[in-house]
Amino acid sequence: MAMNVTQKILAAHLVSGTLEAGSPIAIRIDQTLTQDATGTMAYLQFEALGLPRVRTELSVSYVDHNMLQSGFENADDHRFLQSFAAKYGVHFSRPGNGICHQVHLERFSRPGGTLLGSDSHTPTSGGAGMLAIGAGGLDIALAMGGLPFNLNMPQVVGVKLTGRLQPFVSAKDIILEVLRHKTVKGGVGKVFEYFGPGVAHLSVPERATITNMGAELGATTSVFPSDAVTRRYLAAQGRDAFWSEWVADADADYDEVLEIDLDQLEPLIACPHSPDNVRKVREVAGTPVAQVAIGSCTNSSYTDLMTVASMLKGKVVADGVSLGVSPGSRQVMEMVTRDGGLLDFIGAGSRILESACGPCIGMGFAPPTEGVSVRSFNRNFYGRSGTKNAAVYLASPETCAACALTGVITDPRDLGLAPIHVPVPERFLVDDRMVLAPAAEGSPVDIIRGPNIAKLPTGQAAPASLQGEVLIRLEDDITTDHIMPAGAKVLPLRSNLPAISEFVFHMVDETFPARAKAAGGGFIVAGHNYGQGSSREHAALAPRYLGVRAVLVKSFARIHLANLVNFGILPLTFVDAADYAKVQAGDRLSLELGGLALNKALTLRDETGGFEISVMPQLASARDLELILKGGALSWAREQLEKVS
Amino acid sequence: MAMNVTQKILAAHLVSGTLEAGSPIAIRIDQTLTQDATGTMAYLQFEALGLPRVRTELSVSYVDHNMLQSGFENADDHRFLQSFAAKYGVHFSRPGNGICHQVHLERFSRPGGTLLGSDSHTPTSGGAGMLAIGAGGLDIALAMGGLPFNLNMPQVVGVKLTGRLQPFVSAKDIILEVLRHKTVKGGVGKVFEYFGPGVAHLSVPERATITNMGAELGATTSVFPSDAVTRRYLAAQGRDAFWSEWVADADADYDEVLEIDLDQLEPLIACPHSPDNVRKVREVAGTPVAQVAIGSCTNSSYTDLMTVASMLKGKVVADGVSLGVSPGSRQVMEMVTRDGGLLDFIGAGSRILESACGPCIGMGFAPPTEGVSVRSFNRNFYGRSGTKNAAVYLASPETCAACALTGVITDPRDLGLAPIHVPVPERFLVDDRMVLAPAAEGSPVDIIRGPNIAKLPTGQAAPASLQGEVLIRLEDDITTDHIMPAGAKVLPLRSNLPAISEFVFHMVDETFPARAKAAGGGFIVAGHNYGQGSSREHAALAPRYLGVRAVLVKSFARIHLANLVNFGILPLTFVDAADYAKVQAGDRLSLELGGLALNKALTLRDETGGFEISVMPQLASARDLELILKGGALSWAREQLEKVS
Repeated sequence: MAMNVTQKILAAHLVSGTLEAGSPIAIRIDQTLTQDATGTMAYLQFEALGLPRVRTELSVSYVDHNMLQSGFENADDHRFLQSFAAKYGVHFSRPGNGICHQVHLERFSRPGGTLLGSDSHTPTSGGAGMLAIGAGGLDIALAMGGLPFNLNMPQVVGVKLTGRLQPFVSAKDIILEVLRHKTVKGGVGKVFEYFGPGVAHLSVPERATITNMGAELGATTSVFPSDAVTRRYLAAQGRDAFWSEWVADADADYDEVLEIDLDQLEPLIACPHSPDNVRKVREVAGTPVAQVAIGSCTNSSYTDLMTVASMLKGKVVADGVSLGVSPGSRQVMEMVTRDGGLLDFIGAGSRILESACGPCIGMGFAPPTEGVSVRSFNRNFYGRSGTKNAAVYLASPETCAACALTGVITDPRDLGLAPIHVPVPERFLVDDRMVLAPAAEGSPVDIIRGPNIAKLPTGQAAPASLQGEVLIRLEDDITTDHIMPAGAKVLPLRSNLPAISEFVFHMVDETFPARAKAAGGGFIVAGHNYGQGSSREHAALAPRYLGVRAVLVKSFARIHLANLVNFGILPLTFVDAADYAKVQAGDRLSLELGGLALNKALTLRDETGGFEISVMPQLASARDLELILKGGALSWAREQLEKVS
Repeated sequence: MAMNVTQKILAAHLVSGTLEAGSPIAIRIDQTLTQDATGTMAYLQFEALGLPRVRTELSVSYVDHNMLQSGFENADDHRFLQSFAAKYGVHFSRPGNGICHQVHLERFSRPGGTLLGSDSHTPTSGGAGMLAIGAGGLDIALAMGGLPFNLNMPQVVGVKLTGRLQPFVSAKDIILEVLRHKTVKGGVGKVFEYFGPGVAHLSVPERATITNMGAELGATTSVFPSDAVTRRYLAAQGRDAFWSEWVADADADYDEVLEIDLDQLEPLIACPHSPDNVRKVREVAGTPVAQVAIGSCTNSSYTDLMTVASMLKGKVVADGVSLGVSPGSRQVMEMVTRDGGLLDFIGAGSRILESACGPCIGMGFAPPTEGVSVRSFNRNFYGRSGTKNAAVYLASPETCAACALTGVITDPRDLGLAPIHVPVPERFLVDDRMVLAPAAEGSPVDIIRGPNIAKLPTGQAAPASLQGEVLIRLEDDITTDHIMPAGAKVLPLRSNLPAISEFVFHMVDETFPARAKAAGGGFIVAGHNYGQGSSREHAALAPRYLGVRAVLVKSFARIHLANLVNFGILPLTFVDAADYAKVQAGDRLSLELGGLALNKALTLRDETGGFEISVMPQLASARDLELILKGGALSWAREQLEKVS
């Protein structure tokens, strides 16, 4: 049978199930990655499994989120992660070495392999032909324990690229175009696989920009073939040996095809407050800009930064604009410095931020009140920048540079510059000394735990019935940033559940934590695509800590759905979406769980409204059902590991 | 009469008084500087004076403290400062352009001139033969209004330097040696003037390291002569025209002389938690180090950074150490990048922080719990790093580099390296495009005020008597960091008095604000050198906001004493220091103010203890007395300006 790239990689890793869209499968995971904001929790969970050493081909622990270090918490987490990695066989990428996805692409991605990462932008390595999936920390812990990853076989959307990008139109504009077509809900249960003659003209860093931001579609992942371009990239990284070819068979099928003619594409921009609120840059040109930020795992490669440097060279940023630049990795920073790009940035008045996630995750560089911020990043969710009423736009590095120079939103083609082409280097500057290999197995390593690294709560088995009030009722497209904000004030609390839980729904309703605790828990009700965005499992863990036992929505985003199940929160959807209108905030609900089973609707009684509606538990497998009944995945996983070991 | 440099500059600027140590004088101020953490308040105060334009030769508004930007507050302050500067005739150094003192030294310092700055490290420009004094924001506002600066004529301590620094011994070790001799109380009411044959061997950046950290002596300021070295430095900055010679007459007198033989000096280090807790590096060698920070207004010049880069070249920081580097200015950053130093830093695994105060003021890069942090900075006060139980050491950049490479405290001479000599460049890279000149006088400029920029409170006239309890009783050497902490959580509130007042004495006693408000104010009691450290006037303004009307101590630090008077808090000292032992926390005190006058002791009744003691109001002049009676300096200043205009 002819297969596409997605099917080939899945087939090569299939542990159970069949590759039919929608049916449960389990796949072997070759590599894992974590970042520090999700990593501490993932490793605490791994520790709870009781294994002496990780069982993957490669696991890497990165530090890139919590690097402002306003208090002891962040540095303590870094030390915990470093000592944990040394002991349990994980590579540790030291703070300053760069953003996990950029570094992983450069130094560890392997065509045809599988990567599971506790960060939603893990698909970045899909740019190098890897099947790279974001998941909650617990799933990463289980994968490190050698257990397969469970998912429903996704549909495969083929994105056919024809033509060639024109000057000042970039890879970012491709993914913005896909988002314009498909929206932030359009990728749920799907893999986006790129093919067609346009693919050969895109470098691996360009491809990685696209697969990275494919996360904003809600997709399971995005993937490019591994071809001659991939081979050259890996060779330039000194990793020729890791290349293998992964291309779709000539007659491969896709469940759906979207075609984009790169010749016709022009600079696009995502307007506030959603990555799919996409317009042509020229349609919003002239809007005054207060700040510009270039960086993030989406757009901070060597070629991105050298292109911007070339645009800035000899000029200076507009008086009203603050320009921040955060290089994606130490490799990028070192090469851009060596090749003169950094000098151009500094000369133009840029603020050089650390090689880290930084402003993309709300760690500093917050815009002024009601300020317009144009960013080369992947998310512009409400409040994520650290300034609630800021207006954040997402665009290519070229568009960002144009805005910085003019002080207003500007199509880079309108600057009148000669076309710029920065080729991918034939030889990257390779220096892995900031990645520490683990200690030899069995050598004594003390785990260093700061006072903010709290014990994990243990799951409780599900009760026979759930009663409680609707604590909050929300619209469509609620992000995990809404549920559990990040940013400089909240992220340092990631290892401390009681403390971080006080910020649940902080952007939406600051009274939520107090009300939930006073009520002894209750229900969350929302519309479509609930839990889109970041993979943070705290968006499940913290509501669970506050007593929430069920979430009732029109539809879920994939990673968050898995996280709810992992932590024993029952995910429910309306059988008739119109019932959403009937259930009001404050209504008292009751639900019998006695008959809980796969694909079987339950009857939910709204005691306040005096009516009953039908709701469907979103449980994909017997495993999911068992997790809910046991109150979470950790105890379940311990049993599984006893079986396999 | 033979004069020293201090006397010559003061004489050239004397408005009233005579140059006799201890007697009140008023001097003309040529230049002012502010930074963003004190600047917003200073400009609000200037605005309250009702003048259309500053009346100085030059006033510069810098942004260097609040650059983490975890919320809207910082960026709002930056916009306020930028628009205010444009309107009122102030130059604006944009965020990213560097630390105020480093930039001012490079681009604006003028030998023989006077500079008043709302930052305690303003004496940095003393390295270029300028009389540069730190003061509270209100004093800067008055100076911008053309009013003279009032102080008591200081004693002049001559520091005679002989010999020459040996390899890996640096300017930092000179000032640490002075601190070892004189302590953090030793400079009160004094100017430290450097002379002798050793001076000619010190570059202007080296001299500036010394005058900068002279602030830790509690000194009024520190100053070097302006000589051929100064001339070469200014020429290298393209500012030959600003040079003039200022050297002490051959037979000039000093009130006191301290002699340091540079040949004999060796690497020194200030141990926790005071800059005068100085030991030889070799005495504490071997202590494990968790982090190293190189930068700050003390030690982040081109020569400092290139020296460290040379030591790091080709090596990598020890596994257990996080190394942060913050270049002092855009000029430094640009030149160090151009000349390959930055590449060495990145190669060695350094984290490149913004060109700003950063970790020195607790804005990020906080050490881990109980972590040892070795820093090239000027202060290691308890808690200032952002981690309460961290152990912060202060040392030269060379010693810092040695610690980063070995992972333990290390004398740089023990690395076995060949001596390094980085000469001061013959030509600095000059680019002032990130300093915005003000708009033409009278052109329309809107001041942009964010919601966090609160109105100033108005002073209330002093009551006939003061009653209240001793709200807190403290030891010697209480710093303004104890009284009003800085750091990432508190600094963004600098423009919002009600909000920031909740953090008064946060490090010492978190209940203080609530107790002070509940009691309707009261007294603060402390030992010697109360209010040392940073010039922040919030350390007076915020306690005043909480109702404090009097502070009773053994002795005051200079800038804080002035700030207390400026905001209508009565500064009192024990006539008999032994009475400190009698007055207890919680005691109820009463004090009649009817007879308040200069140099006249008052009788304070301790009603709880049932005794009376004699206390001396620390009022240096009729002006001070008037300020206290009027409840603050703003209304007084308005009257003064009406007289002079």
